[in-house]
Amino acid sequence: MSDERNQRHNSRMARKKEVVDAKIAQASQERGVLLVHTGNGKGKSSAAFGVLARALGHGHSAAVIQLVKSRSDTGEEGFFRQQPNVKWHVMGEGFTWETQDREKDLRAARAAWEQACVYLADPAIDLVILDELTYAFKYGWLELDAVLAAFAARPPHQHVIVTGRAAPEALVAAADTVTEMGMVKHAFQAGVAAMPGIEF
Amino acid sequence: MSDERNQRHNSRMARKKEVVDAKIAQASQERGVLLVHTGNGKGKSSAAFGVLARALGHGHSAAVIQLVKSRSDTGEEGFFRQQPNVKWHVMGEGFTWETQDREKDLRAARAAWEQACVYLADPAIDLVILDELTYAFKYGWLELDAVLAAFAARPPHQHVIVTGRAAPEALVAAADTVTEMGMVKHAFQAGVAAMPGIEF
Repeated sequence: MSDERNQRHNSRMARKKEVVDAKIAQASQERGVLLVHTGNGKGKSSAAFGVLARALGHGHSAAVIQLVKSRSDTGEEGFFRQQPNVKWHVMGEGFTWETQDREKDLRAARAAWEQACVYLADPAIDLVILDELTYAFKYGWLELDAVLAAFAARPPHQHVIVTGRAAPEALVAAADTVTEMGMVKHAFQAGVAAMPGIEF
Repeated sequence: MSDERNQRHNSRMARKKEVVDAKIAQASQERGVLLVHTGNGKGKSSAAFGVLARALGHGHSAAVIQLVKSRSDTGEEGFFRQQPNVKWHVMGEGFTWETQDREKDLRAARAAWEQACVYLADPAIDLVILDELTYAFKYGWLELDAVLAAFAARPPHQHVIVTGRAAPEALVAAADTVTEMGMVKHAFQAGVAAMPGIEF
């Protein structure tokens, strides 16, 4: 590596620092944010659980509600249930193609949303994770307007994360940060089973 | 909700279950996978830390190496350092535009990679997370071929997660699961500061 390359790099980085610093100076609001993790790729729920770990590291309190999942043997649940400051609720009935019972799915989603509303009104909860909430809109289990109203009325410092495919437009519009997890490829397509510690 | 809608839903789900079950039956290999989280959106590192929590919930052992990050006050580090079965190394020198010193960045990346190689050869480690590794290729700190060779030679059950923007094509080709975290929007653009518990 030549000195010249190093010098070019170093002066380019000095210019970049000015630009980055100016942007950081402009971002000065401090408040709770609404995050949405959507798309067909892996990582929507795991990114929410990574943020949960991060929040706990800062001494925050959090609540997690899983709306579709019914299994209680996942690594994330086993792990986070042992942590103080986390409330964990598995309130789904399983995938819709497993239950094959729309009335049952609907009742489960409404019960989950009632529980969510308790946390969304509680200033002692710093982070609320609503895992797979978007399916509640796809299947008509919940009214999007009522959900957005509850988000808007939450304590100002409270963060919310919503996960699930096909986030509705109005949810994206209401959110502060939205990531589309796009599937470039998935091990499952190549014949690899869902591995414990990776997929659940 | 009419009975008719429920019945239509239930029979559609019965058909879907057949398709899903057939795909699951075909995915029967059990082995370590290489995951890549790339793209410009939020969630690359947090999804890796969520998978880490999941793995720990299954009693797995893990090692995390942060290649660019130099700060040691993040929520994730504070949290995971308290957990048994996690080795955590912050081995970066900070963003390239902060160091403005290519030689220093290069030395740090090579030291981090040496540490990574120890874990990639250790069958007692179930999961290795190489956070922000892709920047090592962008800036020419590491040779991609050597990195891919070390991945290929790792213990067969070991999972690896690589994060960072602009994953090189050959890394994507070698990976089992690749997610492109696309930025739809980010709170930072709307003037919200990096919030503890969310961004770090």
